[in-house]
Amino acid sequence: MRHFLNTNDLSRAEIDALLADAAALKQSPINDSLKNKAVALVFFNSSLRTRSSFEIGTFQMGGHAVVLQPGKDAWGVAFEPKAVMDGEEEEHVAEMVRVLSRYVDVIGVRAFPKFKDWSVDREDRVLKAFAQYAGKPVINMETITHPCQELAHALALKERLGNLQNKKYVLTWTYHPKPLNTAVANSALLIATRLGFDVTLLCPTPEYLLDSRYMELGAANAAESGGSLKVSHDPTEAYTGAHVVYAKSWGAIPYFGRWEQEKPIRDAHKHFMVDEAKMALTDNGLFGHCLPMRRNIKATDGVVDSPNSIIIDEAENRLHVQKAVMRWLTGAR
Amino acid sequence: MRHFLNTNDLSRAEIDALLADAAALKQSPINDSLKNKAVALVFFNSSLRTRSSFEIGTFQMGGHAVVLQPGKDAWGVAFEPKAVMDGEEEEHVAEMVRVLSRYVDVIGVRAFPKFKDWSVDREDRVLKAFAQYAGKPVINMETITHPCQELAHALALKERLGNLQNKKYVLTWTYHPKPLNTAVANSALLIATRLGFDVTLLCPTPEYLLDSRYMELGAANAAESGGSLKVSHDPTEAYTGAHVVYAKSWGAIPYFGRWEQEKPIRDAHKHFMVDEAKMALTDNGLFGHCLPMRRNIKATDGVVDSPNSIIIDEAENRLHVQKAVMRWLTGAR
Amino acid sequence: MRHFLNTNDLSRAEIDALLADAAALKQSPINDSLKNKAVALVFFNSSLRTRSSFEIGTFQMGGHAVVLQPGKDAWGVAFEPKAVMDGEEEEHVAEMVRVLSRYVDVIGVRAFPKFKDWSVDREDRVLKAFAQYAGKPVINMETITHPCQELAHALALKERLGNLQNKKYVLTWTYHPKPLNTAVANSALLIATRLGFDVTLLCPTPEYLLDSRYMELGAANAAESGGSLKVSHDPTEAYTGAHVVYAKSWGAIPYFGRWEQEKPIRDAHKHFMVDEAKMALTDNGLFGHCLPMRRNIKATDGVVDSPNSIIIDEAENRLHVQKAVMRWLTGAR
Repeated sequence: MRHFLNTNDLSRAEIDALLADAAALKQSPINDSLKNKAVALVFFNSSLRTRSSFEIGTFQMGGHAVVLQPGKDAWGVAFEPKAVMDGEEEEHVAEMVRVLSRYVDVIGVRAFPKFKDWSVDREDRVLKAFAQYAGKPVINMETITHPCQELAHALALKERLGNLQNKKYVLTWTYHPKPLNTAVANSALLIATRLGFDVTLLCPTPEYLLDSRYMELGAANAAESGGSLKVSHDPTEAYTGAHVVYAKSWGAIPYFGRWEQEKPIRDAHKHFMVDEAKMALTDNGLFGHCLPMRRNIKATDGVVDSPNSIIIDEAENRLHVQKAVMRWLTGAR
Repeated sequence: MRHFLNTNDLSRAEIDALLADAAALKQSPINDSLKNKAVALVFFNSSLRTRSSFEIGTFQMGGHAVVLQPGKDAWGVAFEPKAVMDGEEEEHVAEMVRVLSRYVDVIGVRAFPKFKDWSVDREDRVLKAFAQYAGKPVINMETITHPCQELAHALALKERLGNLQNKKYVLTWTYHPKPLNTAVANSALLIATRLGFDVTLLCPTPEYLLDSRYMELGAANAAESGGSLKVSHDPTEAYTGAHVVYAKSWGAIPYFGRWEQEKPIRDAHKHFMVDEAKMALTDNGLFGHCLPMRRNIKATDGVVDSPNSIIIDEAENRLHVQKAVMRWLTGAR
Repeated sequence: MRHFLNTNDLSRAEIDALLADAAALKQSPINDSLKNKAVALVFFNSSLRTRSSFEIGTFQMGGHAVVLQPGKDAWGVAFEPKAVMDGEEEEHVAEMVRVLSRYVDVIGVRAFPKFKDWSVDREDRVLKAFAQYAGKPVINMETITHPCQELAHALALKERLGNLQNKKYVLTWTYHPKPLNTAVANSALLIATRLGFDVTLLCPTPEYLLDSRYMELGAANAAESGGSLKVSHDPTEAYTGAHVVYAKSWGAIPYFGRWEQEKPIRDAHKHFMVDEAKMALTDNGLFGHCLPMRRNIKATDGVVDSPNSIIIDEAENRLHVQKAVMRWLTGAR
C-alpha cells in the first residue's frame, strides 16, 4: 500500500505517469475507477478548491467523498502517542483513522502548522499519524507541503511550456498581512527542482529561506534532474529572463511564535508584489500562484488577469491530478 | 448562456415552461438530466431547504452538488473590483467563480444583504459578480430577490387555484423581532403581478413600501399581465375577498442601518399577524409563507395548520422548480 | 410506517433479523436498496462516525444523504407545541420535519440532552417531535439512547462470542473530566439484557444508577431473555469472570444542572479506568467502548490496543447495522 504524502517519496517515472494520467483525465473526465468506493476528506483547516475538486473528482469516477471537519462539526482530536486525554480532545487519531479505514478506500488530510514552534510543526505529526494508523492510502491535502498543488502546477507548466528542462523558474516571496504557511513554497521548490528547472528562490533576506530540509532536497533534486537552485534577494536579477514566476508569501522560520518581531521586516518588503514592471523583465514569463490569492497585495490585477497568468489553469488541474492520484493509490489504474 | 438571477429576466413563456416542467418532475422525479454533472452551492448565509432541495434535486437527476460556505468552512471572499486585499478576505470572487466554473456545470449563490446601507445592498453586487465572472450558469438562491421561491410559490398557487388571472392576492407585512431581508417580499410582488393577480401590498405605513425598483416592476408586470397592484395599510380592507394571503416580514428601507429607530414602529404592528379572524374575511383564501417561519408571531397555529395553508407544498415545490431551472440552464431540456 | 427510535420498540425477532442482515451487508456491501432515495441526517450535535457511516452506507445502497446542522449551517429550531416564537429560533420542528419528509425517504436525528434538567431531558422531546411530524421513517442517531450503537455493539459481540446467553457482561462507569450523556449507558443496559447476558452495572455510588426507566426496562428485558441484571460498586467483584467489559462515562442524574457538586465524586473515582489489572480478573474478557474515547482516562492504551479490544469492530459495524435499519424502514428488504 502506498500513500501520497510528498512528491519526493515518488520516483520521477511515477510523477510523470501521474501527470500523463491527469492530462488524459482532463480530456476524458468520466470513468468508473472509484465505482462504489468512498473517500474521507479530513479538514483541520478551511478549504474551497481542495474540497470541491476532491469531492467532484471522486464523483466523476463513480465514488463518494465524505467531508469531515474535526473540532468544527466532528470531535477534537489528540495526536500524541500515550496521551493522557484529560484536555479538550475527545478522540485520539488512532481510533479516528482506524475507523475511517474501515469505512473508506482513501483518506485525505489537511492540517496546517500551528505557527507557534517550527521545530514541532516541521515534524508533520498529524500527517504522519494518519499514515501510521491508516489501513488505506492517505493523501496529503496540505500540511507543511502541498504535493497535490505541485502536480497541478507541474501540469499547468507542461501545458504552456512543453519542455521544462533548464527553463528559468523564479519562486518569489511576496508580502501578506499575516505570516503564512511555508507549505506551497516548500512544494514549489521541490517540484521545480524535480522537473529540471533552473530555480531561483527570491526572498527579502536570508531569514526567509525555507527550512534546510527543503533547501537540501531542492538542491539534491536539481543535481539529479540537471537543473539548478540558487537564492537571490534582488528582484531585478531574479526576474530577468525568467520563464516562470511563481509567487507565494510565507512566514520567516526564525520568527516562528514571535511574529510581532518579524512584522517590520515583512512590512518593509511590500514592493516584492508581482507587478507589470517586474514581469517586463522576464522572457514572456508565466505568472503562477496557488489560490486563494490577495489581489494587489501579492500581485497586481494587471498581472493576475494577463494572458500569461496560469492561476486558473493550475487550480483547475487540481481536479485532474487528484483523480490521477486517487486511482493510482487504489490500484484502479 | 443564460443565468437565473431574477424572474423578470425571463419571458412569461419561459416561466410557464419552467412551471410545466416542474409539475412534470413532481410526477416523475428521477432522470439523467444532470448525469455526471456537478453543481456548486455557495452559501454566504444559512440554509436548510435550499441546500437540501438543490442537493437532492441534483442527485435525482444524476449529478452531484458541492456545498460551500465561504468565511465558514471556505475562505472569506472580496467582491470589489480593483480591491487592494489587505483585510480579512483571502480570496477575490473573480478567482473563486472562475475556478468553480472549471469544476462544475451550474453555480448557485445565496448572499443576503448586509442591512447597513440599502443603497449598497440594492446593487446586489455579489450576485452580479458571480454572473460576471462565471463561465457557467448562475442561479440566485436568494440575495435581494428569491426567484426560486417565486417559482415554487407560483406552482403551489396553480395547483390549488388553477387559473390565477385577477384573483385577489394580498402580500402582507408581518411583525418579526428582527428587521429582515426584503427579498421574498420583492419576489412575491414580482411573481404575483407577473401571473395576472390583482395584488394588494399590505404594510403598516408607507415606510414599509418595497424599493421603488420593485414597486415599479410590479406595476409594469401588472399592466402587461392584465392584473393590478395597489397598496393598503388597512388589514380589513386588504383581506376582504382575498384568494391568497402571502405573509412576510421585512425591514423598512428608510431605516436601514438605524434599526433602533424602526423598532417602535415594528413593535406597534404586531397585530398584523395572520390569524383566523383576518382569514375569515377572505374568499376561502389560501395562506402562504416561505420557510423558516415563526409560529404565533407571523401567523397563528390555527392558520398555519389549516387545510388552506400551502406552506409545506410551496417548500416541497422548491425541489421541483429548481430541478426544472437546472436542466433548462444546462440545456438538458 | 415504522420508526427506529429505541430497540425496545422492536421484537427480539426484528432485532435478530436486523443483525443478520447487517452481517450479510458486511460481506456484500453494495446493493440498490436505496436507489434514487434520499436521507436527511439532522445533527444538533457533533458527529464523525455517525455521519460518515450513514452517508457512506446510503451511497453504498444507491442513495444520497444530506447532512443538516441546525443552528450551525441551518436555522435554529423550536420544539414546543404552541410556541410563541419570539426568541432565537427561526423555525419550528413541525415545518422542518414536514418539509424534509417531502424531500427524503428517511430522516435521522441526533439531539443530545441539554444537561440542565433531567426531568426535561428524559422526555426526549426532539426525537418524539421528529417522529410525530415526520411523514417518513425516523432514526435515532443518539438522543438519550443510542440504538444504532446497540446494534453495532451486539453484532461485534456475536462475531467474537457466538452464543451470548448468560455470558457475564459488565457495564462499567469510568471517569471523564466532564459529565456526559447517559445515552450509551442506557443503551448498553437495554441491549445486553435483551440478548440474555448476565449484566452487572458497575458504578461508583448509587447516585450513578441510570434512570429508573432504563433500570426497569433492563430488569424486564433480563426476565424475558433469561439473563439477569445486578448493580455493583466493587470493581473486583464486577470484573471477576466477565466475558465482556463495556466502559462508558456518564453524569449522575441527581446532580443534573449542578455539576460542580458532582465533580468531587467523579474526581474521586478516576481509578475506575479500565486497566490491565482489572482485565486480568476477567475470563479473557472483551473490551468495548463507543467512540470517541479518551485514552488513558477511560481505558489504558494497553487495554485499548489489546487483541480483546472490539472498539474498532464495533465502530465499523455502525455502517452495516445502519444500512440494515435503513433498508428495513424503507421496505427495501
